[in-house]
Amino acid sequence: MANEEKYVEEIIDQEDNFSQWYNQVVRKAELADYAPVRGCMIIRPYGYAIWENIQRLMDDRFKETGVVNAYFPLLIPRSFLEKEAEHIEGFAPEVAWVTRGGGEELEEPLAIRPTSETIIGHSYARWVQSYRDLPILINLWNNVMRWEKRTILFLRTSEFLWQEGHTAHRSIEEAEERTLMMLEVYRAFAEEDAAMPVIMGRKSENEKFAGALRTYAIEALMKDGKALQAGTSHNLGTRLIGGIIMVHGDDAGLILPPRLAPYQVVVVPIWRKDTEKAAVSAVVERVEKMLKGKVRVKVDLSENTPGWKFNEWELRGVPVRMEIGPRDVQNNSVVLVRRDNRVKEQVSLEALETRLPALLEEVQKALLQRAAEFRAENTHYTDSYEEFKELIAEKRGFVRVKWAEDSAAELAVKEETKATLRVIPFDQPEGGVKGKCIYTGKPATCEAIFARAY
Amino acid sequence: MANEEKYVEEIIDQEDNFSQWYNQVVRKAELADYAPVRGCMIIRPYGYAIWENIQRLMDDRFKETGVVNAYFPLLIPRSFLEKEAEHIEGFAPEVAWVTRGGGEELEEPLAIRPTSETIIGHSYARWVQSYRDLPILINLWNNVMRWEKRTILFLRTSEFLWQEGHTAHRSIEEAEERTLMMLEVYRAFAEEDAAMPVIMGRKSENEKFAGALRTYAIEALMKDGKALQAGTSHNLGTRLIGGIIMVHGDDAGLILPPRLAPYQVVVVPIWRKDTEKAAVSAVVERVEKMLKGKVRVKVDLSENTPGWKFNEWELRGVPVRMEIGPRDVQNNSVVLVRRDNRVKEQVSLEALETRLPALLEEVQKALLQRAAEFRAENTHYTDSYEEFKELIAEKRGFVRVKWAEDSAAELAVKEETKATLRVIPFDQPEGGVKGKCIYTGKPATCEAIFARAY
Repeated sequence: MANEEKYVEEIIDQEDNFSQWYNQVVRKAELADYAPVRGCMIIRPYGYAIWENIQRLMDDRFKETGVVNAYFPLLIPRSFLEKEAEHIEGFAPEVAWVTRGGGEELEEPLAIRPTSETIIGHSYARWVQSYRDLPILINLWNNVMRWEKRTILFLRTSEFLWQEGHTAHRSIEEAEERTLMMLEVYRAFAEEDAAMPVIMGRKSENEKFAGALRTYAIEALMKDGKALQAGTSHNLGTRLIGGIIMVHGDDAGLILPPRLAPYQVVVVPIWRKDTEKAAVSAVVERVEKMLKGKVRVKVDLSENTPGWKFNEWELRGVPVRMEIGPRDVQNNSVVLVRRDNRVKEQVSLEALETRLPALLEEVQKALLQRAAEFRAENTHYTDSYEEFKELIAEKRGFVRVKWAEDSAAELAVKEETKATLRVIPFDQPEGGVKGKCIYTGKPATCEAIFARAY
Repeated sequence: MANEEKYVEEIIDQEDNFSQWYNQVVRKAELADYAPVRGCMIIRPYGYAIWENIQRLMDDRFKETGVVNAYFPLLIPRSFLEKEAEHIEGFAPEVAWVTRGGGEELEEPLAIRPTSETIIGHSYARWVQSYRDLPILINLWNNVMRWEKRTILFLRTSEFLWQEGHTAHRSIEEAEERTLMMLEVYRAFAEEDAAMPVIMGRKSENEKFAGALRTYAIEALMKDGKALQAGTSHNLGTRLIGGIIMVHGDDAGLILPPRLAPYQVVVVPIWRKDTEKAAVSAVVERVEKMLKGKVRVKVDLSENTPGWKFNEWELRGVPVRMEIGPRDVQNNSVVLVRRDNRVKEQVSLEALETRLPALLEEVQKALLQRAAEFRAENTHYTDSYEEFKELIAEKRGFVRVKWAEDSAAELAVKEETKATLRVIPFDQPEGGVKGKCIYTGKPATCEAIFARAY
């Protein structure tokens, strides 16, 4: 058993060092690895399987609203980026430039897309001949690049995978309606599939997308009390995986929401004597067949001890563990253990096909509820800037305050507290906000949420 | 009707100019467009939907054999490419180099991956501690870049989408077995899903992948008599879409195999008087509901005339057209028209749910058969090099000859006839090849297939 203990001891507790915990979980659960190029990452099969599940579920949700996918080129001429002053200002410092190709220096440097914004605009202008060609509802699943020096796996990397939606409409109203519709798709996905409660709202002028009229976003709270922008009105990326890790994980490692988990159930066969092996194996095979196509099952037939396997699959966040030992075989049953709260139950083989999907749904809901409770406990309200500063410094979490929109004030708060204005929630007091801005003392125009953020 | 005729007249006949026909079909069917960066392309939603279907069907086939997906970074340090002399020699002239990032000149230029070969090798060496970690069966769906000056949409572009499989094994035998297993997956996909008959075999030393021990490939014959390598033992890409266009298309445009078609059926409602509209619309809605989730259906409700719609959806290659007019409503039936041979049939609404999927299967099989017949008619055998030259110059197609493997002779044939050794088929005469090499007169070691190629 020494080995098994060592295996778990190697992960630091969240309370002791959250960012170290995060890194250890990502590496040990084999989600991702550093790449030889600084700022880049390798997404390993277990991490990529989560991304594939995210993609498929999001893609289905998009397509239900009439969205179609397409592909736009990786390289963008410099002149395209320069067309929009605000846009280039926002991205220039982060751009990677291709200056040589096919053995020659290029006449015009080509940017690796930081977003496909400008090249999309160019194409739409050619494709749209009349209002009959509208709306265009195109989504892209691709890789983009924004130069980073300090890497946090999934959260901050030079290259990342994402989707970017680009639509063209007959009117501003229709465009606004579509933007809010897609934000609602993100919210539904985050809460229903990722079990991650989010606040929907508008970004401030300082925090909006370079060149955009308005940016809407969904904002989530991580277990260390820091905020994470999990998606904006037109994009969502692999950083969401970072969010899932930090919203649900615990000291034993990952906890994956069943809908996104590569394996929803891990089967651990248990025997001591060779004479027990045949009977146990027969039941394992029967269970595997029974669940095929209904639940994503991994049967762990490796040579490790059962205890080692328990630890490993807890670390890797599989939502439910199924133990099948000689006694279970005798009872014609299996033992199911939830990853989130470690509650055990015995289930007969007959009932398994019905009980297991129901249990996975229960885990899915429980994760969302637990995260929502955590967020409620870590959302603070104050009218005093002194208290605001204390809250941000000592308790972290979301701090909700009365606010008069003002970019300079926002920057001052950031300077003094490291907290940024995360989002101006759609959910505002009925009849408007009464009272004064917590910082400037001017009449408040809204309630805003501040937090330290990733 | 003038408009409708014009619409079709704009496409040149295949016989008159095949490459122009190809380009017109790609553009008018809205599969793809040129990008502002030379050598790059935009894959439009209709083209990308074909790629999505290819991906999903291939991915399912891969996963059934135990393959998992992952993501490796876009950028590769120059030193990695230089590690393998043969590899860099093969790719150096085609590489695009990033030399500036984050506002600074980079110390070491970074290549945009022409393949992930070298970076995969680096990672596997770190991941594999013992034989227990083997095999690794990883596949990547990604974009790669190989500089091209002359673009042919889908067939030759600087950036292209593909999948690359990279495995690591306990023994050479296991590796060889896996390679052939995946080639068989490609064959099954090409023939069963893309209805494209292919020849499986080995590439010659001249034509193999830079740095590989052996390269296996599937080779297909296009309608203009030129060959297309549709995939090698470890990769397959968007060029397959080019192959589908050139294997199945006719003078009216695209013909898509039902399994890959974005829309398998297009419904064209027909009415002259407004009084007929309500009855027709009701049946259209009923049909749409009936087929939902079973068949991919597009209902064309645009303001164009029925004739225009017929032409447009023929051009776009939808396998079956469904016409619903006032007389059909009275008969409680619809008319189905096959794209491949224009055969019409009347089907009652009751029978539609069963008949339509069956008809799509018939079309799928007919396309494969027709392409196989075309290939048989255009495969020639000869023992005379004079006749060989005539065949290549006048008839094109596959020319199968006795051959003694020899790189210099192969290059000489290419120089003299523009034909390349496409593949040494697995299917060789029983008991070995007897006779002399068609070019050198030495004892033949195999039968080989030559052709002009894309």
